[in-house]
Amino acid sequence: MVDDDIPLIHTVAIPIYWGDCDEAGIVFYPNFFRWFDVGFQELLSTRGLSQRALRERHGIIGTALLDAGATFRAPGRHGDVLELGVGIGGWRRSSFRMVYRGRIGTTPVVDGFEVRGFVVEGAGGQLKARPIDPAFRAAFE
Amino acid sequence: MVDDDIPLIHTVAIPIYWGDCDEAGIVFYPNFFRWFDVGFQELLSTRGLSQRALRERHGIIGTALLDAGATFRAPGRHGDVLELGVGIGGWRRSSFRMVYRGRIGTTPVVDGFEVRGFVVEGAGGQLKARPIDPAFRAAFE
Amino acid sequence: MVDDDIPLIHTVAIPIYWGDCDEAGIVFYPNFFRWFDVGFQELLSTRGLSQRALRERHGIIGTALLDAGATFRAPGRHGDVLELGVGIGGWRRSSFRMVYRGRIGTTPVVDGFEVRGFVVEGAGGQLKARPIDPAFRAAFE
Amino acid sequence: MVDDDIPLIHTVAIPIYWGDCDEAGIVFYPNFFRWFDVGFQELLSTRGLSQRALRERHGIIGTALLDAGATFRAPGRHGDVLELGVGIGGWRRSSFRMVYRGRIGTTPVVDGFEVRGFVVEGAGGQLKARPIDPAFRAAFE
Repeated sequence: MVDDDIPLIHTVAIPIYWGDCDEAGIVFYPNFFRWFDVGFQELLSTRGLSQRALRERHGIIGTALLDAGATFRAPGRHGDVLELGVGIGGWRRSSFRMVYRGRIGTTPVVDGFEVRGFVVEGAGGQLKARPIDPAFRAAFE
Repeated sequence: MVDDDIPLIHTVAIPIYWGDCDEAGIVFYPNFFRWFDVGFQELLSTRGLSQRALRERHGIIGTALLDAGATFRAPGRHGDVLELGVGIGGWRRSSFRMVYRGRIGTTPVVDGFEVRGFVVEGAGGQLKARPIDPAFRAAFE
Repeated sequence: MVDDDIPLIHTVAIPIYWGDCDEAGIVFYPNFFRWFDVGFQELLSTRGLSQRALRERHGIIGTALLDAGATFRAPGRHGDVLELGVGIGGWRRSSFRMVYRGRIGTTPVVDGFEVRGFVVEGAGGQLKARPIDPAFRAAFE
Repeated sequence: MVDDDIPLIHTVAIPIYWGDCDEAGIVFYPNFFRWFDVGFQELLSTRGLSQRALRERHGIIGTALLDAGATFRAPGRHGDVLELGVGIGGWRRSSFRMVYRGRIGTTPVVDGFEVRGFVVEGAGGQLKARPIDPAFRAAFE
């Protein structure tokens, strides 16, 4: 996968609960994206940042999702703990790529990514890209 | 996008609720994948099928997700109705590709896909691929 | 139940999806509260109101939940449609009681309530009660 | 409140994430019930039990919810950690009462309860009560 050589810079341990699983007894897959977002937010926290802080400091409404994807390698079940590694796959002018790799024990479970952009809300509610604040990027380098 | 010419064979109207949105007032993105799943399940229903029926008829534990992805074009907000079109992008031996295109009014909001496989649970809880039942495929052709 | 004689003033039809159910194949119960919230928001819509409008018009941060409860009478499953009736059980100075009764076909499935208050955010992030705007109440009488 | 003197026998620390909050920036309340369920499942784990084990050992489809309720005392926000205490409020022939008290730091945030029953699925999909296994009850006494 294209992101295989991106180093992970933070790991979050996420317990998988009963309510995260569907009738087949395995994780209902949209939850993995929910957990990617957790990984992102927790990474922000390690830098003293938060979506709310971004909004207040930079006037952006958040880091809007532009793209997201995942490859699922093995199922997760209630009682498992997902060890989710988080990395940053690259920077563009107004967006950046988050990389995720999840394991349960030694079993690879999920690989994924998000492309997130700095956005402001324009007239009419449309989102408009805005250059990434160098101070934001510097917090991760 | 690679799936642009895949015809949509079903549409689901999905109201966006307050609880689907995050602090920025726009849809929390994992919900779009939840709605892709709704589109898939509703398409099954139009053929008299369901995940439970698949499980009972074919002995599979469901159509496990192998891959999923989405490109987000515009935000959704509470009060909007997402018109989600559903198509089938292709068939392989033990998996198939679902294609999704969502609009709010005339504004394209999201494009996405899922690769779903027929799977059985092997010894040790690992999922094993199984050839797609021709009768299942025939229901969509 | 105490709310049995409260008239229902709006009904919402809520399809139950695969992802709403747990490993036992029945609705994961917190979803019923999510659907109560949908019922409330949809009732607001019928009066041309919304949480966002309340926030902008009245300076409140929303109708904060003070109490909520439910009695579950029969399970819901994927493919069912929950017919959720919504009523208003009473008004106090700064709060009001929402009443919910859900059926699938002719089978009673859930009875519930919410007590919602008009709140503003005080210094330090604590929520403070605020008298209900008479115009808000009038919209439902 | 009626459950105030019930001792808590387990505590779970639950981080509150961005996606758990609504547009007002406070926890979307159905999540508290999701977390009550987490508290229950985690308590089961401390006794070597799980919903799946219950199903396999006792032939029940799970501990179905009969009643649930909560009183909300203060809002939770992204970045907070909910310390959720769990207790057992009493036993009946085929049901038992779970008690929950949640704090963020020293601030009481939520009190709640669930009445859960041992159930089997009867003909036609209706749930039928079944006496609680004494070995299950003994695990908590």
